[in-house]
Amino acid sequence: MENNVYKLIELTGTSPDSIEDAVNNALKQAGKTVRNMRWFTVEETRGAIHENGVSQWQVTIKVGFTLEP
Amino acid sequence: MENNVYKLIELTGTSPDSIEDAVNNALKQAGKTVRNMRWFTVEETRGAIHENGVSQWQVTIKVGFTLEP
Amino acid sequence: MENNVYKLIELTGTSPDSIEDAVNNALKQAGKTVRNMRWFTVEETRGAIHENGVSQWQVTIKVGFTLEP
Amino acid sequence: MENNVYKLIELTGTSPDSIEDAVNNALKQAGKTVRNMRWFTVEETRGAIHENGVSQWQVTIKVGFTLEP
Amino acid sequence: MENNVYKLIELTGTSPDSIEDAVNNALKQAGKTVRNMRWFTVEETRGAIHENGVSQWQVTIKVGFTLEP
Amino acid sequence: MENNVYKLIELTGTSPDSIEDAVNNALKQAGKTVRNMRWFTVEETRGAIHENGVSQWQVTIKVGFTLEP
Amino acid sequence: MENNVYKLIELTGTSPDSIEDAVNNALKQAGKTVRNMRWFTVEETRGAIHENGVSQWQVTIKVGFTLEP
Amino acid sequence: MENNVYKLIELTGTSPDSIEDAVNNALKQAGKTVRNMRWFTVEETRGAIHENGVSQWQVTIKVGFTLEP
Amino acid sequence: MENNVYKLIELTGTSPDSIEDAVNNALKQAGKTVRNMRWFTVEETRGAIHENGVSQWQVTIKVGFTLEP
Amino acid sequence: MENNVYKLIELTGTSPDSIEDAVNNALKQAGKTVRNMRWFTVEETRGAIHENGVSQWQVTIKVGFTLEP
Amino acid sequence: MENNVYKLIELTGTSPDSIEDAVNNALKQAGKTVRNMRWFTVEETRGAIHENGVSQWQVTIKVGFTLEP
Amino acid sequence: MENNVYKLIELTGTSPDSIEDAVNNALKQAGKTVRNMRWFTVEETRGAIHENGVSQWQVTIKVGFTLEP
Repeated sequence: MENNVYKLIELTGTSPDSIEDAVNNALKQAGKTVRNMRWFTVEETRGAIHENGVSQWQVTIKVGFTLEP
Repeated sequence: MENNVYKLIELTGTSPDSIEDAVNNALKQAGKTVRNMRWFTVEETRGAIHENGVSQWQVTIKVGFTLEP
Repeated sequence: MENNVYKLIELTGTSPDSIEDAVNNALKQAGKTVRNMRWFTVEETRGAIHENGVSQWQVTIKVGFTLEP
Repeated sequence: MENNVYKLIELTGTSPDSIEDAVNNALKQAGKTVRNMRWFTVEETRGAIHENGVSQWQVTIKVGFTLEP
Repeated sequence: MENNVYKLIELTGTSPDSIEDAVNNALKQAGKTVRNMRWFTVEETRGAIHENGVSQWQVTIKVGFTLEP
Repeated sequence: MENNVYKLIELTGTSPDSIEDAVNNALKQAGKTVRNMRWFTVEETRGAIHENGVSQWQVTIKVGFTLEP
Repeated sequence: MENNVYKLIELTGTSPDSIEDAVNNALKQAGKTVRNMRWFTVEETRGAIHENGVSQWQVTIKVGFTLEP
Repeated sequence: MENNVYKLIELTGTSPDSIEDAVNNALKQAGKTVRNMRWFTVEETRGAIHENGVSQWQVTIKVGFTLEP
Repeated sequence: MENNVYKLIELTGTSPDSIEDAVNNALKQAGKTVRNMRWFTVEETRGAIHENGVSQWQVTIKVGFTLEP
Repeated sequence: MENNVYKLIELTGTSPDSIEDAVNNALKQAGKTVRNMRWFTVEETRGAIHENGVSQWQVTIKVGFTLEP
Repeated sequence: MENNVYKLIELTGTSPDSIEDAVNNALKQAGKTVRNMRWFTVEETRGAIHENGVSQWQVTIKVGFTLEP
Repeated sequence: MENNVYKLIELTGTSPDSIEDAVNNALKQAGKTVRNMRWFTVEETRGAIHENGVSQWQVTIKVGFTLEP
């Protein structure tokens, strides 16, 4: 097991459909500039309401990625 | 940006199928008597078990709505 | 209402697909050795990342079951 | 198991005698206007002091009740 | 010391100017329909940003008021 | 002071009468199969409501006991 | 309403009998050296186990008292 | 950097005007008997209500001061 | 409502005068390099003490800004 | 990545010397009966005092291990 | 088991070397004026940085000691 | 005291040997690209297990550094 150092960043992904999609949208967007993402934790789940239903899921996650030496 | 005042109420929605459905069921029911619901936060996710599987998702949310002046 | 005593155990279920599946996988596995499971609470939601998307949902739950007298 | 929606309200009951009495006093008072109360959780226990002893127990609870469809 | 029962409601007040004003705005608005408000606790402080400065303070409080017997 | 290792288990005891009884009921039941129980911490206090009063106290505790070498 | 300053101290009271007694024992003892105690909050409830029952309740409280100008 | 030991005390300051004044009032009062106060953290903000507005801000802080060797 | 992804960064702003100024100082400084800041949450309020009064307010906030696609 | 199910157990390890030793002592003892231990999290660090120094470190951890299918 | 009352005080110990030393330094210093210290809990671990390494460990603990009757 | 603005980043350092080494490894690595690091707080301590002992300490810290004006 390598003794790496990891950095954690916090992101809020959104989706009209589900919590899972909101997380994947955040990772997809972050992946454009961040490499070596390894794990995430869900920190908060909230959303916007329109016409008595959820119009947008907003999920805040922390993402850990390996710092390259 | 208007300087509104919002009230928050806490609800537990239930669904046999998913966390998302449980939240939507809570909002749909609350919408019968509450107007101007704007946002929600998920406070707790729990459920009932039957035959070694989830029989009911129980999701507690806080809902914010605009107080009419 | 019977005055039972319940024991709580903590499990982490995993799934490539959804939070709901991860919970059900944990319950299914635990049900092989634990009887009388009644309720669960979601304690933590996290996961592994592969190619800028969620490769595995990891959901930690507490499960309550009746202790047989 | 019916897929009801529940509302949670927060109350502080008081009693000169015990934590249990403070909770029951809150439920008794709330029951005058709220129907279908099902469960409660104790959120905070505090109190007032007089002559080096507890003069009043103040127990804050959340109460869940069924929203009628 | 009377053994009253209190109800707690949660409000978010807003103000372009200060945390204190946001709380007072919430209390002023709530006072139109709620009587006997006695105390509050600050639960969360957040806000909106415009042109690199705070455009709106949003302060969520819990307010306790006496339930009339 | 011996350098023992302890295991902690989580239990929910119930009682129609008091928080103290609910804890003692949990310990009495657990004591049928667990030896060397030393301390407990109260993790959560909740209950069921019937006719505007507490019908059952439900107290969740963690119990520490010595692992025998 | 006077604009006093209060100091808070933290105490653990104990009792073989009940949570309420443990709190009162702490206040009685503290009252020998502290004047003007006004309120307390319960911070933690734990205890010792003997023969599968509670042998001692240990309740940690914070106590607020007026600082004399 | 000296390897000092610090003690932390907890205080509640009050003010009719602002959170900042409540903290300063607590420090001013404590400074009559405590020397070498270095830093504080805000632990809780609450207050009293009169005529639908804040009549008193009550801010609880922890204060760290150097223990003299 | 667009399904954006947001990044959150954590900052500590300082001011000799007030909590509000400390937050605005953090935003002003961050705005030199970060675009599209939308909201903030106050995470911690602390400060330095000099001559029995607050010499510096130190307010830690999280700031959310839109990630450009 | 296999979609395993994990169980978490809670242990308190002790040592007169260090936090690290207390954790290792807990794992060594648990390993006599538990297989496939994979990760741990430190939940609480406390200890006993003798003659104005630490006589025993008491570290509570959660340990995750693979449930065999 | 005697039904003592305990007081808890909060201290921050510091050390250039380790968490364990920081705790022992706090206890040694406190022991000059406090008698009958029995247990401690670690509340927070932080530190100062110099030249990309830890220059000082700062560990905040609560210490419980017996109040003499 | 200068009224600087600080940024906080979150890192996970690892070490086979100790919590202290894991923190220092994180700081050493971060120091390659971040200047003016001033303080850190330990947010979480966890680790990997191999052959019934700790094979890797994983310590998550927040690091504060001065933003250059």
